[in-house]
Amino acid sequence: MRMVDIIERKRDGHALTEEEIRFFVKGYSCGEIPDYQASALTMAIYFRGMNKEETAILTDAMMHSGETVDLSVIPGIKVDKHSTGGVGDKTSLVVGPLVAACGAKIAKMSGRGLGHTGGTLDKMESIPGMNVFVDKEDFIRQLNDIGIAIIGQTAKIDPADKKLYALRDVTATVESIPLIASSIMSKKLASGSDAILLDVKFGTGAFMKTLEDARKLARAMVEIGDSLGRDTRAVLTDMNQPLGKAVGNSLEVIEAINTLQGKGPRDLVDLAIDSGAIILEQAHLVQTYEEGCERIMKAIDDRSGFRKLVELVKAQGGDPSYIENPDKFEKAKYIIPVVSSRAGYVHRIDSLSIGLAAMKFGAGRATMDDVIDMSAGIYLEKKVGDKVESGDVLCYCHTNKTDIKDILKEVEEAFLVDEKKVVLEPIVYDYIHA
Amino acid sequence: MRMVDIIERKRDGHALTEEEIRFFVKGYSCGEIPDYQASALTMAIYFRGMNKEETAILTDAMMHSGETVDLSVIPGIKVDKHSTGGVGDKTSLVVGPLVAACGAKIAKMSGRGLGHTGGTLDKMESIPGMNVFVDKEDFIRQLNDIGIAIIGQTAKIDPADKKLYALRDVTATVESIPLIASSIMSKKLASGSDAILLDVKFGTGAFMKTLEDARKLARAMVEIGDSLGRDTRAVLTDMNQPLGKAVGNSLEVIEAINTLQGKGPRDLVDLAIDSGAIILEQAHLVQTYEEGCERIMKAIDDRSGFRKLVELVKAQGGDPSYIENPDKFEKAKYIIPVVSSRAGYVHRIDSLSIGLAAMKFGAGRATMDDVIDMSAGIYLEKKVGDKVESGDVLCYCHTNKTDIKDILKEVEEAFLVDEKKVVLEPIVYDYIHA
Repeated sequence: MRMVDIIERKRDGHALTEEEIRFFVKGYSCGEIPDYQASALTMAIYFRGMNKEETAILTDAMMHSGETVDLSVIPGIKVDKHSTGGVGDKTSLVVGPLVAACGAKIAKMSGRGLGHTGGTLDKMESIPGMNVFVDKEDFIRQLNDIGIAIIGQTAKIDPADKKLYALRDVTATVESIPLIASSIMSKKLASGSDAILLDVKFGTGAFMKTLEDARKLARAMVEIGDSLGRDTRAVLTDMNQPLGKAVGNSLEVIEAINTLQGKGPRDLVDLAIDSGAIILEQAHLVQTYEEGCERIMKAIDDRSGFRKLVELVKAQGGDPSYIENPDKFEKAKYIIPVVSSRAGYVHRIDSLSIGLAAMKFGAGRATMDDVIDMSAGIYLEKKVGDKVESGDVLCYCHTNKTDIKDILKEVEEAFLVDEKKVVLEPIVYDYIHA
Repeated sequence: MRMVDIIERKRDGHALTEEEIRFFVKGYSCGEIPDYQASALTMAIYFRGMNKEETAILTDAMMHSGETVDLSVIPGIKVDKHSTGGVGDKTSLVVGPLVAACGAKIAKMSGRGLGHTGGTLDKMESIPGMNVFVDKEDFIRQLNDIGIAIIGQTAKIDPADKKLYALRDVTATVESIPLIASSIMSKKLASGSDAILLDVKFGTGAFMKTLEDARKLARAMVEIGDSLGRDTRAVLTDMNQPLGKAVGNSLEVIEAINTLQGKGPRDLVDLAIDSGAIILEQAHLVQTYEEGCERIMKAIDDRSGFRKLVELVKAQGGDPSYIENPDKFEKAKYIIPVVSSRAGYVHRIDSLSIGLAAMKFGAGRATMDDVIDMSAGIYLEKKVGDKVESGDVLCYCHTNKTDIKDILKEVEEAFLVDEKKVVLEPIVYDYIHA
């Protein structure tokens, strides 16, 4: 079998065979197939696509390119949750403790933020002492003990995806549904959960700009999970404005804490209840979605979710006093209000602009080598639909930087205020399952 | 400027700017842009194409990636001839001497054969003593003295094309009209001629399988030459059966000699007259195509073309006694007839099969490292349209190899004999000029 023939077959629109796909993934992982052939193939896949079977085989081959985690020693159904990434997305830090408090086993391997999107690992590391590099044995033990663990993916998991993703990133072949779907799902499947809930976001701040593309990606991932025997479901959620009010690492942790104490912003609370209810269904802990919603709301009301977050932080070496008393989190030196120059209703808060501005304030990375300022970010005082008077504060910018005039202007321009009233859209647009 | 953005723009169907194309060619030539980005770009070009302007700029950038030859010290119009390659294509060895005998200056840099196609350099080297590695000064001196030089391209010419072609060959991006056209034309333009005649072949043994594809390629190349100020024309010629009767290096040289002595096969003679007449027009040595044809026919009749071939061989160190007496060429140990099992007319002689069989007999290279057997090849006794009786010899296979049963079978199967009469097609199907 020759790699050039595989490239040619895909280029000409044929479906690749299982043998061809496994030959590619194996050969590329071990360095026998050079980058220049892999990038030609991924570009051909960008144009020609892959059918369901090809995508499932690619996923399976990548998943088995490295170590897989066996969670079968833990009784019950283990659930993983994955978000395709957005601005202000601290959902995992809310939903994870809530469902664990309801008895679900939530085994999550997370990533870091890049560009305008944040990453759960970075947010967790804003809690002093928090360790996200947990080895496999401790991960399993913690999951068994307290029902929740959120850790970084080890280097041994899915090395084929790491290599291929880095290549796609510099060869303009990231934006391909089968490649995105197999990249996400191969990592999720390798980390050993029985069921997976995918939060596929769409809108300016999301990876998928349109609902239609998000739907395609969600379908592709649900099909992969289904064909490889895992209960996989997806929610399609709005990322046209940031989720909740806080954007930036410690700001988001504080918002997650507040939400678990019943003081969360409406959209984040809605999404947490919705996602949590589905996870409880997937874990066979409730009979119906409605029952799931009730259980999650109860776990907020009775603070059992909040207590589970404290347990999680303790288990991974974090200082729980920060969770009990969020005022302890270090604040940025400068907290600068951005005010509205007109009265009316907020029609748009461009989440891409907000995400990029937060990154520039210090909250994110332009490249993987950048160091994050945990205290930096943006706190929204107004959300889409809110009424504002001229002079009202739209948001506060938290930063330790000084040369920020241009960034403040970008933040201001992210808001669109108009006289007309706004009809609010739900945060969850649709549900996808097999 | 970032290469990943250039790839993305081409991927999304935009025309690249001059700056972007030159950035790519320069960066790739000097090793700053890695192979994996170049292959992703060429695959995107495969799918999205390039417009006239982009293709001309790409050609110009590649042409200037290395040394260019300045032939302006030589008076008159210098003409180059290029064939896209085929089976039995010894046209340059016939047309070159003929037009030089008529006063044209023919400056040709040639390539070697690979796979089922032969190369002019290899054929020339079957003449003992013949030197195809001539330096630039001697090339110009010889061109000035006798009006013709056929040499190998130096390593300093068009290094960008050499690097890019090698990459395309292993990434399934060879078959792209703008990439083929710019690859051929950048080399031709770098070698300094004022006018270029392109012989674009189509059919089973050609690079372009259909007349339509050949026409597209010819148009693309003529447009490039035109936009860069060279008189560029093309003939579209049939390569569904081998050209002439001889396939293999010294066999083809002998056929070229015979043709220059008025004993050539009909299709080769027709093509030589046609191509020669156009070159004489391009060199402003005749007023009309018809006058050109007469001049070429005269150069065959009066043997001035033959004498020019002798001069060419002498000038490049070859032994002219082989040209005067072709019986001196060493013959293969085995000359095996392939006979027809039925009577009728020859409808097809698959040139790809004949080319591959000749290669396997020793006449060609499967890889660039293989050594050629100059005496090996196939000599056709029958051509398409010829009447055959059962038991007639269709061709003779010349080889020094013994384990050739399967190859002989392939040769036999290359011939299709049927009872119906055949309507012959002309060798030259069409002419393309700006």
